[in-house]
Formats: sequence, C-alpha cells, structure tokens
Amino acid sequence: MKLAAVGSVAFDAIETPFGKTDKIVGGAGTYISLASSFFVKEQSLISVVGGDFPKDFLALLQDKGVNVSGVEIKETEKTFFWSGRYHTDLNSRDTLVTELNVLGDFQPKVPALAQNASFLMLGNLSPAVQLSVIQQMATRPKLIAMDTMNFWMDIALDELKETLKHIDVLIINDEEARQLSGVYSLRKAANIIRAMGPQILIIKKGEHGALLFHEKNVFYAPALPLEEVFDPTGAGDTFAGGFMGYLAAASQLDFETMKRAIIAGSALASFCVEKFGTERLLEISHTDLQQRMQEFVTLSTFQLEA
Amino acid sequence: MKLAAVGSVAFDAIETPFGKTDKIVGGAGTYISLASSFFVKEQSLISVVGGDFPKDFLALLQDKGVNVSGVEIKETEKTFFWSGRYHTDLNSRDTLVTELNVLGDFQPKVPALAQNASFLMLGNLSPAVQLSVIQQMATRPKLIAMDTMNFWMDIALDELKETLKHIDVLIINDEEARQLSGVYSLRKAANIIRAMGPQILIIKKGEHGALLFHEKNVFYAPALPLEEVFDPTGAGDTFAGGFMGYLAAASQLDFETMKRAIIAGSALASFCVEKFGTERLLEISHTDLQQRMQEFVTLSTFQLEA
Repeated sequence: MKLAAVGSVAFDAIETPFGKTDKIVGGAGTYISLASSFFVKEQSLISVVGGDFPKDFLALLQDKGVNVSGVEIKETEKTFFWSGRYHTDLNSRDTLVTELNVLGDFQPKVPALAQNASFLMLGNLSPAVQLSVIQQMATRPKLIAMDTMNFWMDIALDELKETLKHIDVLIINDEEARQLSGVYSLRKAANIIRAMGPQILIIKKGEHGALLFHEKNVFYAPALPLEEVFDPTGAGDTFAGGFMGYLAAASQLDFETMKRAIIAGSALASFCVEKFGTERLLEISHTDLQQRMQEFVTLSTFQLEA
Repeated sequence: MKLAAVGSVAFDAIETPFGKTDKIVGGAGTYISLASSFFVKEQSLISVVGGDFPKDFLALLQDKGVNVSGVEIKETEKTFFWSGRYHTDLNSRDTLVTELNVLGDFQPKVPALAQNASFLMLGNLSPAVQLSVIQQMATRPKLIAMDTMNFWMDIALDELKETLKHIDVLIINDEEARQLSGVYSLRKAANIIRAMGPQILIIKKGEHGALLFHEKNVFYAPALPLEEVFDPTGAGDTFAGGFMGYLAAASQLDFETMKRAIIAGSALASFCVEKFGTERLLEISHTDLQQRMQEFVTLSTFQLEA
C-alpha cells in the first residue's frame, strides 16, 4: 500500500451565492482519497461513519482503488454532519450546524495493510488523533503530510506543536500560517513554521494559488481563474490529496517533483469547485486532468528574453 | 517623447503596523514616473503641485529623465495631501486625511513636447479629467493605459464608461474588477470589462500577484513573497509605471512582451513596498531590478515532465 490517509467522511449541506444542497457526501477523507485516486491505484482510507452513510458511496471509493477496510461503520450512530453558508466572496463562510456524531470520539485504527504505507496524509483532525495515527505505523513513512486549522491553534497548540515534530509537510492556508507563526510575512512565517518540524510548508491561498517552501526554495503556483466557482468545499482537501497522490506515484521527492505535485493538486482543486461537493471529481477523466495541468503551464509561463 | 503620464504628485503621511512617516513625497504620478524611468530615458509627467512642494524632488525626477515642464506649480496654493493607516493585513487601509488642495480643480495641460507620445499612462483621477488628457494628444498614442478606483465607479460611472471607450489597457484591482463588471468570476469580469473598451485588462491582486487578460489569453503573474512589507503605498502605481515603461522601451506589443512588462512592474512594486514611500525605488540599481525579475522566473517556473 503506497498511500494511507486519515480524515472525516461526512455529510455536508452547503449554501453558496449560487445555490444550495441537501445533505451530500463530503469530508476531508473523502476528498483526499478521491483526488489521490487519480494517481494511486491502491490506497487506504481511515475514517468512521454512522449506519446512515450510503454503502454505495463506500463501494464507489473501493472501485477507485480506495481500500475502505479502515473506515469503521458504527451502525447505531450517525455520520458527522456539517452545514455552512459561504459569503459572496467565497473566501469566508459561516458554519450553520456541526453535529460531530461518530467523529466525536473518533479513534482511528490503522489497518494492518496500511501500516507500512510509504506516504501518509493526515486530514484535519485533532493533533493528538493525528499523532496517534503516526504512532500506529509499523515503519516510518517516507513522507508524512498533514492539514490542520486555526481551531487547533486556539485550543490545542501544545499538542499541535508536538505532532508537527513528527511530520514532513504541513499544508495550511495563509491566515493559519500567520496565526501559527505569529508573523505577517509569509516568507518569515515559513522559516518559523519549518523550525517547528516540517521541512516542507505549503501555504494554500484559495483563488490566489499556493506557495511551496523547502529550504531556500520558494515556488508560487498560480490558481486558474475560473468561469464559475460554485462551491469551494473540499478544495483544500482535494489539493492535499492530489499533491500526495502525485508524490506517491512519482519516483522522486525533489523540489521539481514537489512543484509538479502542487500543480496536480491545484488542477484537481480547480475542478472540485466547479460543481457542488464531489460531483465534478467523480465525472472528470485522466485526460481532463492532464489538459487542466497543461492550462497551468500556459497560464504561468513567461520568458524574460524575447 | 516615448511616454507621457498624468497623475497626482502629493504629500503622504503613512501609518503601517511597522512604522509611521511624517509628510513624504508620494502620489500616483510620482510612482509611475519613477518606475517607468528604469526603462525609458525620456518621458513627460503631467501634474500639479503647490508652492510648498520641494523643488529638489522635481530636480531629482528631471535627473531621471522625467520632463517636469508639465507639472504646474501653483505657488500660492498647497500640494495635495493624503494620510492613511494600514490594517494589520496591509490589504486594507483607512484614510485619515484628504486635503485636495491644488488637485481640487486640476485641469491637466499636456505640454507640446508630450502631445505625440506613443505611450500614455493615465493615473487615477476623475474619468473626465483622464479623457481630457486623451483629447489633448495631437496623435492617438499607440497604447493608452489607465488606472481608476471604486470611488469613480460609485459617483461617475457614466463618465468612466465613456473614458474606457478610448483606452487600450485598464489596470485595476480584483475588488474593482468585480464592482465594475457586477460579477464575481474574474474570468467573466474580464470579458465584460473588455467589452466596455479596453482590449487588455490587468487585475492587480497585491500580495497575490496580477492577472493579464487579452483576447483568449490569460497570464498569472506571481507576487514575490517578501521578508518585509513595510508600506504598500504606491505599489499599484509603481506596477503600472513599470509595465508602461517596459512596453514603451520594447519593440513589440504582443502578449509575450506584455507578460514581461507585467513581471517588470511586479518586480518594481516588490521593491517599492520594502521601505516607506519612494525610498526604495530611489536606491535600487538596474542590476537589482534585473536580479529581482530573475527571481520571478525562479519563483514560478515548473515543468510537467521530469
């Protein structure tokens, strides 16, 4: 098993300026696995759902090479539910409902088949839970990446700092990077955060692209200006899943490969936001993805000399 | 005369989270001319100042090839004064004081030596005043670019739309592009705005770079993540001045040349914000600028194939 990922599998109900959904399948783990499945034929998803979760969605993941034996099903309980409303600028949102349900006391169990995965993606969960996943690995993965959020910086900063010591890649947004480092300059923030543990920092900036920091290197990945952005939900997790999937399938882990992985993640995220939930990720082909990645080349290529 | 520019020459007093200035020289026209002087040996600045404006600053501009015969000096009046305080994120600011003074009834007079300029940059002024400058040109410039702001969209939209019919390049920020077009998607906004007149639209996104739209082409220019951002004042005007200066010195006006011009403008803007006011623009060399432009290549270059 090349890749293991832990993250929520959930129901979301979403309102954006462009429309509204009933309960649809969402969750960080879902988006991560769907995105990485474009590059990795076999992977393991570690999560928990309630008896109300549609079995056919788990079957769909399985069809895409996502081993779901690590997704615990608590038949008598309910799946994690989140409902939110995006503001006009789509960069901010209000949470309307959070029902933790099965996620409230989620203790991920890494199945034996995933304990030797060479790539581990830790979706946004409490830092203590993320650490427990690392500790269950039989061998230290070649690359451990994690997402987190300002909520954990507010209420569990010490645990977060402990978990950061054990990972290689931290993937957060610009606001979170500023909060975690305490400085405004993202270049300074990168140095401060990298001194906490992760040698690689990725700062997601939504419609403004992403920054990759490693040693003295910086890469600015653009975001594709889109005709329509319907729903940003899952874009960050899709980005992370695409990034890790690309790396897990690559033969090297140098900076140039990481850049390509960022473009892969950005391209998948650019699809994700075009429709509600996972809908667009489920309908695009590998050819669509390759064409979209090529658009990123066209979008950002220039030469200083004529 | 290759290039003529119109714009305010002013006093600014600036507060940022990192410090505070007394009255220093600023104004759109000042930044535009200083930036374009890196590429253009002879240009004309059209503006107005009061008797309180330091003559040695005008001499300094003249030394840099900026002909200031179009800068009217109203000896008995006072120079335009603006004071503002930036918020922590440096992307927004409060205006503390605006004293229009000589700018209140500014009627730019294009001097004879500038009336055949092939490049015309219209800094942010009322659209009617911008149009009056275009109408004073003896021959239609090869390229007319202009800046504007949401204030004019609020109070003088019809005049703005009239002026837009006469220009080639509109340079505004993302918020202004959304307001002017009435749509959220910048790609859609670009089509709507380009239908108003300018065939080329540049959307400035501050620390998130800039977008260039022309026909079906889109270019995403990154912004350099900086160690220190001291003061964003003048960055947009510096960007515009660098862009127009580069084009005025170039032999072609195709999309590839425009991309390079955007990088030139972005590089100059990245220097501008490193110190207060015009200080950094006045101390950097051509070599510094070339190195900085090279950093933009390093920052954004990737290849999809290993």
